[in-house]
Amino acid sequence: MRVNDLSSAQVSVVGLGLMGGSLAGALRGRCRRVVGVARRQETIEAAQEHGLIDEGTTELGEGVRQADVVVLATPVRVILRQLAEIGPLLPEGCLLMDLGSTKADIVAAMARLPDHVQPLGGHPMCGKEVSGIAAADPTLYQGRTFILCPLPRTSAAALALGCHLAEAVGAQPLVLEADRQDYLVATLSHLPYLLACALVATADATTSADPAAWQIVASGFRDTSRLAGSDVTMMTDILLTNRAEVLKALRHYAAQLTRLTRLVESGDEEEMGAALSRIRRERLRMFP
Amino acid sequence: MRVNDLSSAQVSVVGLGLMGGSLAGALRGRCRRVVGVARRQETIEAAQEHGLIDEGTTELGEGVRQADVVVLATPVRVILRQLAEIGPLLPEGCLLMDLGSTKADIVAAMARLPDHVQPLGGHPMCGKEVSGIAAADPTLYQGRTFILCPLPRTSAAALALGCHLAEAVGAQPLVLEADRQDYLVATLSHLPYLLACALVATADATTSADPAAWQIVASGFRDTSRLAGSDVTMMTDILLTNRAEVLKALRHYAAQLTRLTRLVESGDEEEMGAALSRIRRERLRMFP
Repeated sequence: MRVNDLSSAQVSVVGLGLMGGSLAGALRGRCRRVVGVARRQETIEAAQEHGLIDEGTTELGEGVRQADVVVLATPVRVILRQLAEIGPLLPEGCLLMDLGSTKADIVAAMARLPDHVQPLGGHPMCGKEVSGIAAADPTLYQGRTFILCPLPRTSAAALALGCHLAEAVGAQPLVLEADRQDYLVATLSHLPYLLACALVATADATTSADPAAWQIVASGFRDTSRLAGSDVTMMTDILLTNRAEVLKALRHYAAQLTRLTRLVESGDEEEMGAALSRIRRERLRMFP
Repeated sequence: MRVNDLSSAQVSVVGLGLMGGSLAGALRGRCRRVVGVARRQETIEAAQEHGLIDEGTTELGEGVRQADVVVLATPVRVILRQLAEIGPLLPEGCLLMDLGSTKADIVAAMARLPDHVQPLGGHPMCGKEVSGIAAADPTLYQGRTFILCPLPRTSAAALALGCHLAEAVGAQPLVLEADRQDYLVATLSHLPYLLACALVATADATTSADPAAWQIVASGFRDTSRLAGSDVTMMTDILLTNRAEVLKALRHYAAQLTRLTRLVESGDEEEMGAALSRIRRERLRMFP
């Protein structure tokens, strides 16, 4: 490790969208310097105007050359490409993290990094259905869980620094194995996205043709369908890199939906009431 | 009609749960008198303590005897039972409305009311996943659509008074045929409830066994599953009285879910991106 405490570290955030821009803004003032790396100069300028970074560059090599911590905040498959190239650009002892929503493929790619780099997978449980630097919000991480996936080669000091970074942006670090995190987020995060998409597609194919539908659609539909507005590039990468777990979650879900459909078909009031009450209690247990 | 303007009307609200209690509170001061009718004396007392009603009673006959407008704010199948009995209790020219979420069965029952009553089906597009008088909120109806389903026998003056009542609580009236409203809300309101239930049941059967799931579950899952916390008696009544339309919506939805599942299975990036982008655009069109 180049530094042991965050306050003396230069942190370079690669990718200044919603997640990266928000992280940069939350870290600014809590570390020595926040450097933003983006493909387009306009993004750098916007990040500077919003006070999210100390310095910015469109050159990856220049942005990470003096970094104590590098955070890749790009879509998952861009992270995979960057991991294949970034190693030689990083200084000795640099901590390399990411914010990708799926972890097994990323951690496997991190295992192939050169020995002088300390890798640590990361996945903060937050987001919005809007994307881009204009939506960046330094409070985005506050009170959220920040999953960390260390590799066998990750040192205790590197993991501790990653935990400090998560805490510095207001999140609670949670150390998890990559496979376990991918299994859990398939049901808790990727499945809800697909349900929301199927709901919007259903309305689009049926009720949206009726002008009254637009006056009727209420907060229930709005909340249930919110995730269908998520960034498509991000979600495509997630679905393609967590396919097996997402398909398992979809199969479980389809079985539950069939069970509920049969209850409605049967019209058995008692059975329906009992099943819906069990589900309601479980929802209250999840969100008291 | 007994009155032509709401300000001189006594409005009796039968059922002081979330919907009835909120309506009573919103109407108070905008009509001559708001009378609350509930099964239990404690509910009347709570409604009075919260300033939602002028007077209250547990006797239906007493509560509606002098009413210019009666609003049935009970679950759909209770409304159906009340419609079979309430006719003889109502004064000549009384406007009888309801707040039930399904309208075909209710409007059919309203058609059998004695001639001296003016019937008008109603369905305000609002709600919360909490129920009961303690959750009542006079602002609940503000900015929402209030569907009104007049019968062939409903007079223009009765419909106008119903519109005034909707506007008095801050809602926008929308006149719709009962069958058309039931078709629309099956997809826009009842389907989202069932999806949320299937999602909670899926997590319950799989990830909830892992303690980390409780730290990971984020705002996406919370919003998508919110409706699963809805009142079970209300939802059972809705599903049982709108079965045919709900089953049609479920079939459409299952087909869309199968389509998305096949896209994930195929792993065809281009097709997936195109389908998810179309859905995202449609979601933005629904909620700009």
